[in-house]
Amino acid sequence: MLDSETLNSLAQRLSPGAVLTDPDLLESYRQDWSFDPDAGTPAAVVRAADTADVQEVLRFAVENGVPVVPRGAGTSVVGGSTAIDGAITLSLERMSAITVDRASRTAVVGPGAVTVDVKSAAAAAGLFYPPDPSSFEICSIGGNVATNAGGPCCTKYGVTSDYVLGMTVVLADGSAVELGGTRVKDSPGLALAKLFVGSEGTLGVITSITLRLVPQPAAPHTLVAYFPHMSDAAAASQDITAALRPSQLEIMDNAAVNVAEDFLRMDLDRTAGALLIARSDAGAAAESELSAMQRMCESRGATAVFATDDRFEGELFDRPRHAIYEALEKVGALISDDVAVPVQRLSELTDGLAAIAERHRTTIVSCTHAADELTHPVLSYPHGDESAATAAAAARGEIHELVAALGGTVPTEYGVGRRKRAVLAAGLSPELLALNRRIKQAVDPTNILNPKVLISSLDEPPQRVG
Amino acid sequence: MLDSETLNSLAQRLSPGAVLTDPDLLESYRQDWSFDPDAGTPAAVVRAADTADVQEVLRFAVENGVPVVPRGAGTSVVGGSTAIDGAITLSLERMSAITVDRASRTAVVGPGAVTVDVKSAAAAAGLFYPPDPSSFEICSIGGNVATNAGGPCCTKYGVTSDYVLGMTVVLADGSAVELGGTRVKDSPGLALAKLFVGSEGTLGVITSITLRLVPQPAAPHTLVAYFPHMSDAAAASQDITAALRPSQLEIMDNAAVNVAEDFLRMDLDRTAGALLIARSDAGAAAESELSAMQRMCESRGATAVFATDDRFEGELFDRPRHAIYEALEKVGALISDDVAVPVQRLSELTDGLAAIAERHRTTIVSCTHAADELTHPVLSYPHGDESAATAAAAARGEIHELVAALGGTVPTEYGVGRRKRAVLAAGLSPELLALNRRIKQAVDPTNILNPKVLISSLDEPPQRVG
Repeated sequence: MLDSETLNSLAQRLSPGAVLTDPDLLESYRQDWSFDPDAGTPAAVVRAADTADVQEVLRFAVENGVPVVPRGAGTSVVGGSTAIDGAITLSLERMSAITVDRASRTAVVGPGAVTVDVKSAAAAAGLFYPPDPSSFEICSIGGNVATNAGGPCCTKYGVTSDYVLGMTVVLADGSAVELGGTRVKDSPGLALAKLFVGSEGTLGVITSITLRLVPQPAAPHTLVAYFPHMSDAAAASQDITAALRPSQLEIMDNAAVNVAEDFLRMDLDRTAGALLIARSDAGAAAESELSAMQRMCESRGATAVFATDDRFEGELFDRPRHAIYEALEKVGALISDDVAVPVQRLSELTDGLAAIAERHRTTIVSCTHAADELTHPVLSYPHGDESAATAAAAARGEIHELVAALGGTVPTEYGVGRRKRAVLAAGLSPELLALNRRIKQAVDPTNILNPKVLISSLDEPPQRVG
Repeated sequence: MLDSETLNSLAQRLSPGAVLTDPDLLESYRQDWSFDPDAGTPAAVVRAADTADVQEVLRFAVENGVPVVPRGAGTSVVGGSTAIDGAITLSLERMSAITVDRASRTAVVGPGAVTVDVKSAAAAAGLFYPPDPSSFEICSIGGNVATNAGGPCCTKYGVTSDYVLGMTVVLADGSAVELGGTRVKDSPGLALAKLFVGSEGTLGVITSITLRLVPQPAAPHTLVAYFPHMSDAAAASQDITAALRPSQLEIMDNAAVNVAEDFLRMDLDRTAGALLIARSDAGAAAESELSAMQRMCESRGATAVFATDDRFEGELFDRPRHAIYEALEKVGALISDDVAVPVQRLSELTDGLAAIAERHRTTIVSCTHAADELTHPVLSYPHGDESAATAAAAARGEIHELVAALGGTVPTEYGVGRRKRAVLAAGLSPELLALNRRIKQAVDPTNILNPKVLISSLDEPPQRVG
């Protein structure tokens, strides 16, 4: 354990006021949005002001054998920044500067910048930063990079990794290294920038990120289609993705439509097996793309299709999808997961979700990024109801079994964190697990960096050196 | 050195006929397209039939302390597959199967598949594999992955790494590991598939690749514009990339236009400072995109602009760019390099290239992927003229100095190989070089995998174990 004298010595190495040890403040940094009952209490929180602060923290951590949990906005739903007892939580929230360069269509951003602010700064320069995790208004760009965050627009635009050109990263030995570059084709050696994306703070602490931006696309046209059965919607989505690249292609299941209607009262069809919400931002081609999508939906048995080129009406059409989280949060606790099955088996997945919900008397709704085959089952139960929480956890286990039975995977759009670590490790071959560990060991030999997440270190304790 | 008895023992572990030791055959595997005068002669060439063969070769190599040079089609222009004396050259050319799955829009391909065949197989299923290195008709997809190959279409569609979902890779210890997955959002642990892309055979031998495909875009519309000065063309390209995502945006300099005209005799304007060739494959939006590009070119002083929606005429418009290599190869040896400067300084680069060419009495022409700021200077000199070859090499050194002076980089669209290894290493910080070596050391501790390329191992000899 770190005594107060040792912590004082740390404070003297850092920017003024960087070290927090007040118990009330420490309490507020214990949890992230995974609300892990096993969250620890940090010995100290460091709010780094710059790369030099981060370097000092990591040198101190190695000297003292203390784990470091990097933390952005704390919105991880998988425990990516849950505190460890006696460790240092290293907050990057103060490092939030954003600089956009129009000429090279790049942005240099601090890890603590909120994603919506990155998007806004790009838009102010007539440019577009596409990745749109559902938490984009509150999450940090550093967390997006650490988890390789996705979102609906990834269907057309790709995930966070596709926009990271380079970064400054501080390694466990305190060295600051520039990875990648400022151009798509810059590649100084091994593709280490790509390796650090999605590494969840286990390989280093990212202190600056160079992002690629693209021209702002045209305002989207939006289409919604109701289908009697999920299998029809899945078939329509296959037709669409074989021919077109919509900027969004989402499918809500019947349970999701009903939760949205309970909340919004906008006369959604409660009997629909599925609601498909598609968009095109292809400018002069958007109208023809929407016409094509409409024909494809109708030929797969859509009972009603509505299309609009009006931006405001389009937002309204897209509203039910966003309402799910708001609606469920109002009535209880929720668990949002991510799973994937081949799109041909999507209806078996959603039928199975309904059966599991019924069996465990819990609420399960799902939204699917259809082109990427990624489904978010969202489980909900009353706050403080322990037996309901247990039932939801059991239901979640059954969902993962169902996904495996359908030939699917449990991907990690949200990251692995603590919550999915066991699920993930169970699915990896011994050779792949060993390779992951060899990389981790090579970069963080004393295992101080976020040692309880991902798969890198499992339960090996950090080692003390020096 | 491997004696014939030891090589016989290797042959017995592999598919029949896999091991070649005939001196004439060995001779044909010494060189790649870099024609390195220091190319060695392999002790044996193994033409692997499957992953098991590759595993046996690597086990054998580690047991005997023999380097292994993986080889696809042998089209590297930087010495990525140049043979090493006494080593094993491991040819993947027989592993060329291609399977396309329409439903998931993926292809599983052997590393020896020729890129054009991957593109054709995708097209036959109505799908598109975008990356288009200029050698796509003869290079192997495994080599594309090993070098993270690019091409003109990367402007809109990204580089090879953006299309690699997963792979089977054989590590130095002979284990076969599945990296990545079959979906964009599959991420089993660290992003190791992304790390292996561009690793040039130094981390493992790729034996199968899962590629992401996209819907086939519409036939492109094509625009060409002549500019009095390169700076005008560069300004026009900046206007274009700030607003649009053309599927191609190339700029040829005056020297390139003249070499093309010498060869094609199609009445190109020999006095033009630059020829810009842009395309849009945006379907119903292509016409308006071309109109916008035409306006932008004219407002930057283009002296003539021609646009066409005809596919055949568009190919004709694009012909000069492709003719450069053909034209120069007819008259001499050539060196094609890749460099990058900010687009605002492109005219200083091409002016500098002209001055260097004049000073060294050598031919230097350039083509630029304008949206990616990547310029290919192509140097040419008469076959067998040693003093001209020396002058070209000196000119190349001056080009790299010029690029540095203009705030540019020496990127590696072609890979690093042997040829750019020293240039690259000189540009890396000690910390970054150390990090690259730590990763290499963790994955290939005895340094048997392509030890003379990239930056991984520099001149450390392979070690013998077991």
